[in-house]
Amino acid sequence: MSDFPKFVEFHEEGPREGFQIECQTYPVAQRARLIEALADAGLKTIQVGSFVSPKAVPTMADTAEVFDVLKKRPGVRYTALWLNEMGFEKARSVREVDLDPKIMFYTTDPFSLRNNNCTAGEMRDKQLRWIDTYRNAGLDVDGAYVMTAFGCNLQGDVPLSAVTDIVKWVRDVCRDRDIRLKQFYLADTVGWANPEEIKRRVGAVRDLLPDVRIGLHLHDTRGLGAANVYAALQMGVDLFDSSVAGLGGCPFAGHGDVKGAGNICTEDMVFMCHEMGIETGIDLDALIEAARLAETIIGRPLAGRIMHAGSLRQYRSKARVAA
Amino acid sequence: MSDFPKFVEFHEEGPREGFQIECQTYPVAQRARLIEALADAGLKTIQVGSFVSPKAVPTMADTAEVFDVLKKRPGVRYTALWLNEMGFEKARSVREVDLDPKIMFYTTDPFSLRNNNCTAGEMRDKQLRWIDTYRNAGLDVDGAYVMTAFGCNLQGDVPLSAVTDIVKWVRDVCRDRDIRLKQFYLADTVGWANPEEIKRRVGAVRDLLPDVRIGLHLHDTRGLGAANVYAALQMGVDLFDSSVAGLGGCPFAGHGDVKGAGNICTEDMVFMCHEMGIETGIDLDALIEAARLAETIIGRPLAGRIMHAGSLRQYRSKARVAA
Repeated sequence: MSDFPKFVEFHEEGPREGFQIECQTYPVAQRARLIEALADAGLKTIQVGSFVSPKAVPTMADTAEVFDVLKKRPGVRYTALWLNEMGFEKARSVREVDLDPKIMFYTTDPFSLRNNNCTAGEMRDKQLRWIDTYRNAGLDVDGAYVMTAFGCNLQGDVPLSAVTDIVKWVRDVCRDRDIRLKQFYLADTVGWANPEEIKRRVGAVRDLLPDVRIGLHLHDTRGLGAANVYAALQMGVDLFDSSVAGLGGCPFAGHGDVKGAGNICTEDMVFMCHEMGIETGIDLDALIEAARLAETIIGRPLAGRIMHAGSLRQYRSKARVAA
Repeated sequence: MSDFPKFVEFHEEGPREGFQIECQTYPVAQRARLIEALADAGLKTIQVGSFVSPKAVPTMADTAEVFDVLKKRPGVRYTALWLNEMGFEKARSVREVDLDPKIMFYTTDPFSLRNNNCTAGEMRDKQLRWIDTYRNAGLDVDGAYVMTAFGCNLQGDVPLSAVTDIVKWVRDVCRDRDIRLKQFYLADTVGWANPEEIKRRVGAVRDLLPDVRIGLHLHDTRGLGAANVYAALQMGVDLFDSSVAGLGGCPFAGHGDVKGAGNICTEDMVFMCHEMGIETGIDLDALIEAARLAETIIGRPLAGRIMHAGSLRQYRSKARVAA
């Protein structure tokens, strides 16, 4: 039998992961309006942008301005991404960034080398320095991410032991430093996960970290996003990163282009939860409107499905009126 | 625990359901080439087209020509759709149509009235006449379809009893007429299904028809297609209608337009099966090439995901070479 959670939390990544991938920078006012619509729909954690090199990611160079313009809603966490100390300092300097310090790990050397210019082992050591950096800033690490936790385009299959080795290392480091880790994320960075592997890996992490909440960061790269979420729900997972309208992918990307790999779509997954009696705190129809706003801003059809078909509410209420 | 089937069969609907929905008619030679590519990839049942009113569905008016041009592969069933006796006679007149007589049911009056100009009850009576028509042609009904088995845009939610009533009626009719029904399909015609409801309804049908193979005809209207397939696999379902490249939907369709509702994508679902150790008899990479051919023919990005990202084989073999 399934062990569904009663309530599932979605962390919205679209404004960052979605807009970052685009070839053009979208106006600050439009991005702020989308974020406001997402908060109005009930999302409680929204990643606004990145504080990274404007040369590497020009589309995110104005993230501070988005924070500045944005009408904040009480109770919503507006987060950001950074990859080095300069980025972290920049994030700290923007008053309303919710600093949620995470440590990040890679399962394979080639992927880590490509993304961070260091091996997976060196990346691990770097995280010890991040823990200190955050402590010096008066913050404790609250979560850990394992990237390429299901497979890696550069190395192929990733054995479960590559993940559990990281889990054990994190567990020991947190214990030694008296850090109460709240969240442990597995990221299917390049779309290798399948539902059975989701179950196997979530189960293995839970065995090692029974008191830590498990989160999943999934992409719908090969069409299994919804199946992977359903498998995770069956395991009781109640925390997902996702993107409104399935932002983060580009339908015009060439074969094998990582740009083709969008995040799981927030409103489609919210729909699934609601239909199965799982609460999310989100107003689905308002979220669908936010997805349509995202499509209008981006200016081409996006991958989300229910935003095009409409929710079932209209049909159910029409039927009630007719009855 | 899951009760996965060892082998899953996909019935390919793309050449009919996908091309039928388009505003233009695509050349016979191109459609034949796609069907040949699908058969080459290992699909054993392919719906080639429809014998329906050329006024109502002009894109299928030349279905006989597609059958004529098509290079047939031994062991492959090339099927077609018809909705009235004239269509059936036309199908019979085309030598290589695999006639697989099905009876069709609707769960709600308004949907049946819209599609068939008769109530669901009248549609049921019509099926008795179809059974006779097929018998007179020397054929026995081999399958039954329940359309709108999970919900209906015109009536709203469809109670399980509306489905089980049809199942019991079919069971009794087949028993009285000594018909050995082989397949019983539930169709999520307008995208209302969710994974838990899939399990509940498949279970209920199986209880009533323990010796009949259950098939599912699913659409990815609201993004739950893959989750619904995974739930069905957990129930041991081993028969799915699907469309290469997710054909059958149109990304440019307006909100609420049924054209937005594509079938579940054959190659994405084949990928899921293979990754979980379930065989399909299909060469995934060849099928992905067929999906790309479909996209080239249609001339706009299609909904399939793995066709854009590529299979994992390339990455695994690269990794093996490097090791």
